[in-house]
Amino acid sequence: MRYAVLGTGTVGRTIAGKLASLGHEVAVGTRAPEATRARTEPDAHGNPPLTQWLAERPGVRLLPFAGAAAFGEALVNTTSGTASLAALAAAGRDHLAGKILMDIANPLDFSAGMPPSLDPVNTDSLGEQIQRAFPETKVVKTLNTMTALVMVEPSRVPGPHHVFVSGDDADAKEFVTGRLVEFGWPGESVIDLGDITTARGTEMLLPLWLRLWGALGHADFNFHVQGAPTGA
Amino acid sequence: MRYAVLGTGTVGRTIAGKLASLGHEVAVGTRAPEATRARTEPDAHGNPPLTQWLAERPGVRLLPFAGAAAFGEALVNTTSGTASLAALAAAGRDHLAGKILMDIANPLDFSAGMPPSLDPVNTDSLGEQIQRAFPETKVVKTLNTMTALVMVEPSRVPGPHHVFVSGDDADAKEFVTGRLVEFGWPGESVIDLGDITTARGTEMLLPLWLRLWGALGHADFNFHVQGAPTGA
Repeated sequence: MRYAVLGTGTVGRTIAGKLASLGHEVAVGTRAPEATRARTEPDAHGNPPLTQWLAERPGVRLLPFAGAAAFGEALVNTTSGTASLAALAAAGRDHLAGKILMDIANPLDFSAGMPPSLDPVNTDSLGEQIQRAFPETKVVKTLNTMTALVMVEPSRVPGPHHVFVSGDDADAKEFVTGRLVEFGWPGESVIDLGDITTARGTEMLLPLWLRLWGALGHADFNFHVQGAPTGA
Repeated sequence: MRYAVLGTGTVGRTIAGKLASLGHEVAVGTRAPEATRARTEPDAHGNPPLTQWLAERPGVRLLPFAGAAAFGEALVNTTSGTASLAALAAAGRDHLAGKILMDIANPLDFSAGMPPSLDPVNTDSLGEQIQRAFPETKVVKTLNTMTALVMVEPSRVPGPHHVFVSGDDADAKEFVTGRLVEFGWPGESVIDLGDITTARGTEMLLPLWLRLWGALGHADFNFHVQGAPTGA
């Protein structure tokens, strides 16, 4: 199956790399591929230049947002939360229509320094904003409550722990759950919170996640809901 | 030791009852004790009249906020989040000065229906508002991330799970941790998130808690941070 992963940061590379390693065809979407390819320095987060990452994964294409979205039968949003709506608009409504979009972004605003602010909160979420802006796309919020490496290798964190899905379309959530299982998540680790408005809850978990990261001194942790059914 | 539990709702009764059952002297504080005693109907949440609850616990006093706060060597805030600052003002700055206050309230506003809105968020928290309003009081935010019965009987939820503490005063956090252990929490279940600003994280967990309550259909669950040190 063909996937478009929008975003070239840590999460985008991690998800795209995992999908490619599983044998899927992957296009990574970015705003300006030639400018991205021209960079030879690490980015602001210390990631090596994308060209190096791409050189090690010859099957992965780098395309403009629109080209990637046209290529993908399913899409993954890993752009920064404050840029997601613009990135998806650049990807093109027609290229998103009728497709499933896994939304991993969190609407964190780092412009005033650390800790970042979350916007929107309470009565809206980025997941809902995306669903409203692209009503023909089936948005499923997931994986936004943990660090990138844990998303695709849950066994990095010992013991059982959970990943949440939020979305209005049951078939889309089932498809996404299948991808999570493919990533290594036991089926009983996936908690369906309900419709896309439940993304407010998982996005608002980020401030606690960031404080735990500080308190524990590492990011290899995840939330387990004790008292939830453990399934099979 | 003498405790003042401010608030007569489910959380207040649960904490006050537990402290009394452990042999502590307990005063429950409310705005107008005589009006509270005069009520013979269940409250808006279906709790039986407080007089009935008090009749079963003859050692527990019901006092005005100020009288309870004067009585308590340590205090517990279980008032509703939107009323907490007013309740604590009524309790009296002098009665709170130099004492430890366990703050269990969440600043949830139900005035626009379900789900409630959380206010403040991001750049402030109720825990910080209380600490700023009462600088001579040692505020420790804790227990606000679970249902009342689990607070005082953590074994209701099978398996290990966590309770967070946030506060500026290390000795106050140690005292509160001692009370949590007395309530039945293993010492290694207590995660010290840091200063009182970390209360933003635990308060912002409430929207996810509320959605999980809906998805699971019961409240006997709690968060366990897999990957945190498990201690002894």
